[in-house]
Amino acid sequence: MANKAAPDASRRSERSRRAIFDAALALVGEVGYDKLTIEGIAARAGVGKQTIYRWWPSKAAVLLDAFSAGVEEYDRQGLPDTGDLAADLKFVLRATADEFNDAAWQAPYRALAAAGANDEELSRTFVGRLMEPGIRVYVERLRAAQEAGEVAPDIDVRIAAEMLLSPFSQRWLMRTGELTHDYVDTLVDQVLRGLRPRD
Amino acid sequence: MANKAAPDASRRSERSRRAIFDAALALVGEVGYDKLTIEGIAARAGVGKQTIYRWWPSKAAVLLDAFSAGVEEYDRQGLPDTGDLAADLKFVLRATADEFNDAAWQAPYRALAAAGANDEELSRTFVGRLMEPGIRVYVERLRAAQEAGEVAPDIDVRIAAEMLLSPFSQRWLMRTGELTHDYVDTLVDQVLRGLRPRD
Repeated sequence: MANKAAPDASRRSERSRRAIFDAALALVGEVGYDKLTIEGIAARAGVGKQTIYRWWPSKAAVLLDAFSAGVEEYDRQGLPDTGDLAADLKFVLRATADEFNDAAWQAPYRALAAAGANDEELSRTFVGRLMEPGIRVYVERLRAAQEAGEVAPDIDVRIAAEMLLSPFSQRWLMRTGELTHDYVDTLVDQVLRGLRPRD
Repeated sequence: MANKAAPDASRRSERSRRAIFDAALALVGEVGYDKLTIEGIAARAGVGKQTIYRWWPSKAAVLLDAFSAGVEEYDRQGLPDTGDLAADLKFVLRATADEFNDAAWQAPYRALAAAGANDEELSRTFVGRLMEPGIRVYVERLRAAQEAGEVAPDIDVRIAAEMLLSPFSQRWLMRTGELTHDYVDTLVDQVLRGLRPRD
Protein backbone atom coordinates (compact mmCIF):
# COMPACT_ATOMS: atom_id res chain seq x y z
CA MET A 1 0.00 0.00 0.00
CA ALA A 2 3.06 2.33 0.03
CA ASN A 3 2.41 5.27 -2.28
CA LYS A 4 5.31 7.72 -2.10
CA ALA A 5 3.74 10.20 -4.52
CA ALA A 6 0.81 10.91 -2.20
CA PRO A 7 1.56 9.82 1.35
CA ASP A 8 -1.30 11.84 2.90
CA ALA A 9 -3.91 10.54 0.49
CA SER A 10 -2.70 7.01 1.04
CA ARG A 11 -2.82 7.43 4.81
CA ARG A 12 -6.35 8.87 4.56
CA SER A 13 -7.44 5.93 2.38
CA GLU A 14 -6.05 3.44 4.84
CA ARG A 15 -7.84 5.22 7.67
CA SER A 16 -11.15 5.12 5.76
CA ARG A 17 -10.65 1.47 4.87
CA ARG A 18 -10.07 0.61 8.53
CA ALA A 19 -13.14 2.66 9.61
CA ILE A 20 -15.30 0.90 6.99
CA PHE A 21 -14.10 -2.53 8.14
CA ASP A 22 -14.74 -1.73 11.79
CA ALA A 23 -18.21 -0.38 10.96
CA ALA A 24 -19.14 -3.44 8.86
CA LEU A 25 -17.98 -5.91 11.52
CA ALA A 26 -19.79 -4.04 14.32
CA LEU A 27 -23.01 -3.55 12.34
CA VAL A 28 -23.42 -7.13 11.13
CA GLY A 29 -23.21 -8.21 14.76
CA GLU A 30 -25.93 -5.75 15.73
CA VAL A 31 -28.43 -6.01 12.85
CA GLY A 32 -27.57 -9.30 11.11
CA TYR A 33 -26.46 -9.91 7.55
CA ASP A 34 -29.91 -9.50 5.95
CA LYS A 35 -30.37 -5.96 7.36
CA LEU A 36 -26.78 -4.86 6.79
CA THR A 37 -26.60 -2.12 4.11
CA ILE A 38 -23.84 -0.15 2.42
CA GLU A 39 -25.62 3.03 3.60
CA GLY A 40 -25.53 1.84 7.18
CA ILE A 41 -21.83 0.96 6.97
CA ALA A 42 -21.03 4.37 5.41
CA ALA A 43 -22.96 6.26 8.10
CA ARG A 44 -21.26 4.36 10.93
CA ALA A 45 -17.82 4.78 9.35
CA GLY A 46 -18.33 8.49 8.70
CA VAL A 47 -17.65 8.19 4.96
CA GLY A 48 -19.81 8.77 1.89
CA LYS A 49 -21.38 5.63 0.43
CA GLN A 50 -19.67 6.40 -2.90
CA THR A 51 -16.34 5.83 -1.12
CA ILE A 52 -17.49 2.29 -0.34
CA TYR A 53 -18.89 1.63 -3.81
CA ARG A 54 -15.60 2.83 -5.34
CA TRP A 55 -13.76 -0.03 -3.59
CA TRP A 56 -16.35 -2.79 -3.17
CA PRO A 57 -19.25 -4.03 -5.33
CA SER A 58 -21.46 -5.33 -2.47
CA LYS A 59 -21.89 -5.61 1.27
CA ALA A 60 -20.70 -9.21 1.10
CA ALA A 61 -17.43 -8.04 -0.48
CA VAL A 62 -16.90 -5.43 2.27
CA LEU A 63 -17.58 -7.96 4.99
CA LEU A 64 -15.32 -10.58 3.45
CA ASP A 65 -12.44 -8.10 3.18
CA ALA A 66 -13.06 -6.81 6.69
CA PHE A 67 -13.06 -10.27 8.20
CA SER A 68 -10.20 -11.53 6.03
CA ALA A 69 -7.97 -8.64 7.11
CA GLY A 70 -8.10 -10.07 10.62
CA VAL A 71 -7.30 -13.68 9.76
CA GLU A 72 -4.88 -13.41 6.84
CA GLU A 73 -1.94 -12.53 9.06
CA TYR A 74 -2.77 -15.55 11.24
CA ASP A 75 -2.96 -17.84 8.19
CA ARG A 76 0.36 -16.51 6.87
CA GLN A 77 2.12 -17.47 10.10
CA GLY A 78 0.84 -21.05 9.93
CA LEU A 79 0.52 -23.31 12.96
CA PRO A 80 3.25 -23.58 15.57
CA ASP A 81 5.61 -26.52 15.06
CA THR A 82 7.31 -27.46 18.32
CA GLY A 83 7.75 -31.04 17.10
CA ASP A 84 4.81 -32.18 19.29
CA LEU A 85 1.79 -32.38 16.97
CA ALA A 86 -0.80 -33.05 19.70
CA ALA A 87 0.41 -30.13 21.84
CA ASP A 88 0.48 -27.75 18.87
CA LEU A 89 -3.04 -28.68 17.71
CA LYS A 90 -4.49 -28.42 21.22
CA PHE A 91 -2.82 -25.04 21.75
CA VAL A 92 -4.26 -23.55 18.57
CA LEU A 93 -7.70 -25.16 18.76
CA ARG A 94 -8.17 -24.12 22.40
CA ALA A 95 -7.41 -20.51 21.40
CA THR A 96 -9.78 -20.85 18.43
CA ALA A 97 -12.52 -22.19 20.73
CA ASP A 98 -12.11 -19.11 22.96
CA GLU A 99 -12.39 -16.89 19.89
CA PHE A 100 -15.50 -18.68 18.53
CA ASN A 101 -17.11 -18.40 21.98
CA ASP A 102 -16.67 -14.60 21.84
CA ALA A 103 -19.98 -13.05 20.68
CA ALA A 104 -18.37 -10.00 19.02
CA TRP A 105 -15.89 -12.10 17.04
CA GLN A 106 -18.37 -14.73 15.93
CA ALA A 107 -21.19 -12.50 14.61
CA PRO A 108 -19.68 -11.64 11.19
CA TYR A 109 -18.28 -15.14 10.68
CA ARG A 110 -21.65 -16.73 11.45
CA ALA A 111 -23.43 -14.23 9.17
CA LEU A 112 -21.08 -15.07 6.29
CA ALA A 113 -21.29 -18.81 6.91
CA ALA A 114 -25.09 -18.73 7.06
CA ALA A 115 -25.48 -16.47 4.04
CA GLY A 116 -23.01 -18.67 2.21
CA ALA A 117 -24.95 -21.86 2.91
CA ASN A 118 -27.82 -20.43 0.85
CA ASP A 119 -25.97 -18.28 -1.70
CA GLU A 120 -23.66 -20.41 -3.81
CA GLU A 121 -21.55 -17.53 -5.17
CA LEU A 122 -21.01 -15.97 -1.76
CA SER A 123 -20.28 -19.42 -0.41
CA ARG A 124 -17.51 -20.02 -2.94
CA THR A 125 -15.91 -16.67 -2.03
CA PHE A 126 -16.33 -17.29 1.70
CA VAL A 127 -14.83 -20.75 1.39
CA GLY A 128 -11.99 -19.62 -0.89
CA ARG A 129 -11.04 -16.53 1.09
CA LEU A 130 -11.68 -17.65 4.65
CA MET A 131 -12.30 -21.35 5.14
CA GLU A 132 -9.79 -22.89 2.73
CA PRO A 133 -6.77 -20.84 3.93
CA GLY A 134 -7.74 -21.80 7.48
CA ILE A 135 -7.89 -25.52 6.56
CA ARG A 136 -4.64 -25.25 4.59
CA VAL A 137 -2.54 -24.30 7.64
CA TYR A 138 -3.69 -27.52 9.31
CA VAL A 139 -3.01 -29.59 6.18
CA GLU A 140 0.51 -28.13 6.07
CA ARG A 141 1.14 -28.82 9.75
CA LEU A 142 -0.10 -32.42 9.29
CA ARG A 143 2.09 -32.84 6.21
CA ALA A 144 5.14 -31.62 8.18
CA ALA A 145 4.27 -34.17 10.88
CA GLN A 146 3.96 -36.84 8.17
CA GLU A 147 7.44 -35.95 6.88
CA ALA A 148 8.76 -36.09 10.45
CA GLY A 149 7.29 -39.60 10.83
CA GLU A 150 4.67 -38.57 13.41
CA VAL A 151 1.82 -39.30 10.95
CA ALA A 152 1.64 -42.50 8.88
CA PRO A 153 2.65 -42.11 5.21
CA ASP A 154 -0.64 -43.51 3.83
CA ILE A 155 -2.84 -40.94 5.60
CA ASP A 156 -4.80 -38.46 3.45
CA VAL A 157 -3.86 -35.28 5.36
CA ARG A 158 -6.63 -33.21 3.80
CA ILE A 159 -9.29 -35.60 5.11
CA ALA A 160 -7.43 -35.76 8.44
CA ALA A 161 -7.65 -31.94 8.69
CA GLU A 162 -11.40 -32.16 8.02
CA MET A 163 -11.77 -34.82 10.74
CA LEU A 164 -10.30 -32.28 13.14
CA LEU A 165 -11.87 -29.04 11.92
CA SER A 166 -15.35 -30.01 10.69
CA PRO A 167 -16.62 -31.39 14.01
CA PHE A 168 -15.37 -28.20 15.65
CA SER A 169 -17.00 -25.87 13.07
CA GLN A 170 -20.23 -27.78 12.97
CA ARG A 171 -20.66 -27.75 16.76
CA TRP A 172 -20.30 -24.01 16.58
CA LEU A 173 -22.36 -23.28 13.46
CA MET A 174 -25.26 -25.61 14.33
CA ARG A 175 -24.88 -25.17 18.10
CA THR A 176 -24.85 -28.95 18.59
CA GLY A 177 -22.44 -28.74 21.51
CA GLU A 178 -20.09 -26.56 23.52
CA LEU A 179 -16.57 -25.74 22.34
CA THR A 180 -14.67 -26.38 25.56
CA HIS A 181 -10.96 -27.09 26.08
CA ASP A 182 -11.89 -30.63 27.19
CA TYR A 183 -13.77 -31.20 23.95
CA VAL A 184 -10.81 -29.89 21.91
CA ASP A 185 -8.37 -32.17 23.76
CA THR A 186 -10.50 -35.30 23.29
CA LEU A 187 -11.08 -34.51 19.62
CA VAL A 188 -7.34 -33.97 18.96
CA ASP A 189 -6.43 -37.18 20.82
CA GLN A 190 -9.04 -39.29 19.00
CA VAL A 191 -8.11 -37.96 15.59
CA LEU A 192 -4.36 -38.33 16.13
CA ARG A 193 -4.76 -41.85 17.49
CA GLY A 194 -5.75 -42.93 13.98
CA LEU A 195 -3.00 -41.02 12.19
CA ARG A 196 0.05 -42.39 13.95
CA PRO A 197 2.25 -44.89 12.14
CA ARG A 198 1.49 -48.52 13.00
CA ASP A 199 4.36 -50.23 14.77
CA MET B 1 -53.72 -40.71 14.27
CA ALA B 2 -56.40 -43.46 14.46
CA ASN B 3 -59.77 -41.86 15.03
CA LYS B 4 -62.50 -44.51 14.93
CA ALA B 5 -65.32 -42.03 15.46
CA ALA B 6 -64.60 -40.28 12.15
CA PRO B 7 -62.60 -42.46 9.78
CA ASP B 8 -63.36 -40.37 6.70
CA ALA B 9 -62.37 -37.08 8.34
CA SER B 10 -59.18 -38.70 9.56
CA ARG B 11 -58.35 -40.00 6.10
CA ARG B 12 -59.08 -36.56 4.61
CA SER B 13 -56.80 -34.94 7.20
CA GLU B 14 -54.01 -37.35 6.42
CA ARG B 15 -54.42 -36.65 2.71
CA SER B 16 -54.27 -32.88 3.31
CA ARG B 17 -51.24 -33.26 5.56
CA ARG B 18 -49.42 -35.25 2.88
CA ALA B 19 -50.38 -32.68 0.20
CA ILE B 20 -49.14 -29.83 2.41
CA PHE B 21 -45.82 -31.62 3.04
CA ASP B 22 -45.31 -32.35 -0.65
CA ALA B 23 -46.12 -28.74 -1.54
CA ALA B 24 -43.74 -27.32 1.11
CA LEU B 25 -40.84 -29.57 0.04
CA ALA B 26 -41.34 -28.82 -3.65
CA LEU B 27 -41.76 -25.07 -3.16
CA VAL B 28 -38.74 -24.51 -0.92
CA GLY B 29 -36.64 -26.15 -3.62
CA GLU B 30 -38.08 -23.82 -6.24
CA VAL B 31 -38.22 -20.45 -4.45
CA GLY B 32 -35.87 -20.85 -1.46
CA TYR B 33 -36.66 -20.56 2.23
CA ASP B 34 -36.84 -16.75 2.34
CA LYS B 35 -39.59 -16.58 -0.29
CA LEU B 36 -41.51 -19.60 0.95
CA THR B 37 -44.93 -18.56 2.34
CA ILE B 38 -47.85 -20.32 4.00
CA GLU B 39 -50.07 -18.88 1.23
CA GLY B 40 -47.83 -20.42 -1.43
CA ILE B 41 -47.88 -23.80 0.27
CA ALA B 42 -51.68 -23.67 0.65
CA ALA B 43 -52.20 -22.78 -3.01
CA ARG B 44 -49.90 -25.56 -4.21
CA ALA B 45 -51.48 -28.11 -1.86
CA GLY B 46 -55.02 -27.10 -2.81
CA VAL B 47 -56.05 -26.34 0.79
CA GLY B 48 -57.10 -23.13 2.54
CA LYS B 49 -54.33 -21.37 4.42
CA GLN B 50 -56.42 -21.66 7.61
CA THR B 51 -56.01 -25.43 7.36
CA ILE B 52 -52.27 -24.93 7.58
CA TYR B 53 -52.44 -22.38 10.39
CA ARG B 54 -54.70 -24.75 12.36
CA TRP B 55 -51.90 -27.33 12.47
CA TRP B 56 -48.64 -25.32 12.29
CA PRO B 57 -47.59 -21.93 13.66
CA SER B 58 -45.04 -21.07 10.92
CA LYS B 59 -43.52 -22.10 7.61
CA ALA B 60 -40.48 -23.41 9.46
CA ALA B 61 -42.71 -25.73 11.48
CA VAL B 62 -44.40 -27.07 8.31
CA LEU B 63 -41.06 -27.65 6.63
CA LEU B 64 -39.56 -29.36 9.65
CA ASP B 65 -42.54 -31.73 9.93
CA ALA B 66 -42.50 -32.37 6.20
CA PHE B 67 -38.82 -33.19 6.12
CA SER B 68 -38.90 -35.12 9.39
CA ALA B 69 -41.70 -37.37 8.13
CA GLY B 70 -39.26 -38.66 5.52
CA VAL B 71 -36.31 -39.34 7.83
CA GLU B 72 -37.97 -40.48 11.05
CA GLU B 73 -38.67 -43.94 9.70
CA TYR B 74 -35.03 -44.21 8.65
CA ASP B 75 -33.81 -43.07 12.07
CA ARG B 76 -36.13 -45.57 13.80
CA GLN B 77 -34.58 -48.45 11.89
CA GLY B 78 -31.04 -47.50 12.95
CA LEU B 79 -27.93 -48.50 11.03
CA PRO B 80 -27.39 -52.02 9.72
CA ASP B 81 -25.30 -54.22 12.00
CA THR B 82 -23.74 -57.07 10.04
CA GLY B 83 -20.89 -57.30 12.55
CA ASP B 84 -18.55 -55.48 10.13
CA LEU B 85 -18.49 -51.83 11.27
CA ALA B 86 -16.50 -50.48 8.30
CA ALA B 87 -18.76 -52.17 5.75
CA ASP B 88 -21.93 -50.98 7.49
CA LEU B 89 -20.72 -47.36 7.72
CA LYS B 90 -19.56 -47.29 4.10
CA PHE B 91 -22.85 -48.79 2.92
CA VAL B 92 -24.97 -46.17 4.69
CA LEU B 93 -22.73 -43.17 4.02
CA ARG B 94 -22.44 -44.00 0.31
CA ALA B 95 -26.24 -44.07 0.10
CA THR B 96 -26.41 -40.81 2.06
CA ALA B 97 -23.90 -39.22 -0.32
CA ASP B 98 -26.10 -40.19 -3.27
CA GLU B 99 -29.09 -38.65 -1.49
CA PHE B 100 -27.25 -35.40 -0.64
CA ASN B 101 -26.09 -35.15 -4.27
CA ASP B 102 -29.74 -35.24 -5.40
CA ALA B 103 -30.89 -31.64 -6.01
CA ALA B 104 -34.56 -32.28 -5.15
CA TRP B 105 -33.74 -33.98 -1.86
CA GLN B 106 -31.16 -31.48 -0.72
CA ALA B 107 -33.08 -28.22 -1.27
CA PRO B 108 -35.25 -28.29 1.87
CA TYR B 109 -32.43 -29.65 4.05
CA ARG B 110 -30.05 -26.94 2.87
CA ALA B 111 -32.73 -24.26 3.38
CA LEU B 112 -33.34 -25.43 6.95
CA ALA B 113 -29.62 -25.72 7.71
CA ALA B 114 -28.89 -22.25 6.34
CA ALA B 115 -31.87 -20.61 8.02
CA GLY B 116 -30.90 -22.39 11.23
CA ALA B 117 -27.33 -21.09 11.16
CA ASN B 118 -28.75 -17.56 11.51
CA ASP B 119 -31.91 -18.19 13.54
CA GLU B 120 -31.09 -19.70 16.91
CA GLU B 121 -34.60 -20.93 17.72
CA LEU B 122 -35.07 -22.59 14.32
CA SER B 123 -31.59 -24.01 14.66
CA ARG B 124 -32.40 -25.69 17.97
CA THR B 125 -35.52 -27.24 16.46
CA PHE B 126 -33.70 -28.28 13.30
CA VAL B 127 -30.90 -29.82 15.31
CA GLY B 128 -33.22 -31.49 17.81
CA ARG B 129 -35.65 -32.89 15.25
CA LEU B 130 -33.37 -33.69 12.31
CA MET B 131 -29.66 -33.59 13.05
CA GLU B 132 -29.49 -35.13 16.52
CA PRO B 133 -31.63 -38.20 15.70
CA GLY B 134 -29.41 -38.70 12.63
CA ILE B 135 -26.23 -38.50 14.75
CA ARG B 136 -27.74 -40.77 17.40
CA VAL B 137 -28.10 -43.77 15.07
CA TYR B 138 -24.34 -43.55 14.43
CA VAL B 139 -23.55 -43.18 18.13
CA GLU B 140 -25.66 -46.29 18.81
CA ARG B 141 -23.96 -48.29 16.05
CA LEU B 142 -20.53 -47.26 17.39
CA ARG B 143 -21.56 -48.17 20.92
CA ALA B 144 -22.66 -51.63 19.72
CA ALA B 145 -19.24 -52.01 18.05
CA GLN B 146 -17.59 -50.92 21.29
CA GLU B 147 -19.53 -53.59 23.19
CA ALA B 148 -18.50 -56.14 20.56
CA GLY B 149 -14.83 -55.18 21.05
CA GLU B 150 -14.45 -53.65 17.58
CA VAL B 151 -13.99 -50.15 19.09
CA ALA B 152 -11.66 -49.45 22.02
CA PRO B 153 -13.38 -49.01 25.40
CA ASP B 154 -11.86 -45.54 26.06
CA ILE B 155 -13.24 -43.97 22.85
CA ASP B 156 -15.84 -41.19 23.21
CA VAL B 157 -18.38 -42.54 20.69
CA ARG B 158 -20.24 -39.24 20.40
CA ILE B 159 -17.07 -37.43 19.29
CA ALA B 160 -16.23 -40.39 17.03
CA ALA B 161 -19.63 -40.01 15.34
CA GLU B 162 -18.90 -36.30 14.81
CA MET B 163 -15.49 -37.15 13.28
CA LEU B 164 -17.38 -39.20 10.72
CA LEU B 165 -20.46 -37.06 10.09
CA SER B 166 -19.26 -33.45 10.42
CA PRO B 167 -16.66 -33.61 7.62
CA PHE B 168 -19.35 -35.16 5.42
CA SER B 169 -22.00 -32.51 6.30
CA GLN B 170 -19.60 -29.60 6.05
CA ARG B 171 -18.35 -30.62 2.59
CA TRP B 172 -21.94 -30.62 1.49
CA LEU B 173 -23.20 -27.50 3.29
CA MET B 174 -20.19 -25.31 2.45
CA ARG B 175 -19.48 -27.02 -0.87
CA THR B 176 -15.81 -27.51 0.10
CA GLY B 177 -15.56 -30.80 -1.76
CA GLU B 178 -17.42 -33.56 -3.56
CA LEU B 179 -19.27 -36.32 -1.72
CA THR B 180 -18.03 -39.33 -3.68
CA HIS B 181 -17.96 -43.00 -2.70
CA ASP B 182 -14.14 -42.80 -2.66
CA TYR B 183 -14.26 -39.91 -0.21
CA VAL B 184 -16.70 -41.80 2.02
CA ASP B 185 -14.50 -44.90 2.03
CA THR B 186 -11.32 -42.99 2.93
CA LEU B 187 -13.11 -41.05 5.65
CA VAL B 188 -14.55 -44.21 7.21
CA ASP B 189 -11.17 -45.99 7.04
CA GLN B 190 -9.27 -43.07 8.59
CA VAL B 191 -11.79 -42.57 11.38
CA LEU B 192 -12.02 -46.28 12.23
CA ARG B 193 -8.25 -46.66 12.23
CA GLY B 194 -8.17 -44.50 15.37
CA LEU B 195 -11.05 -46.27 17.10
CA ARG B 196 -9.80 -49.84 17.03
CA PRO B 197 -8.51 -51.40 20.25
CA ARG B 198 -4.72 -51.25 20.58
CA ASP B 199 -3.08 -54.67 20.63
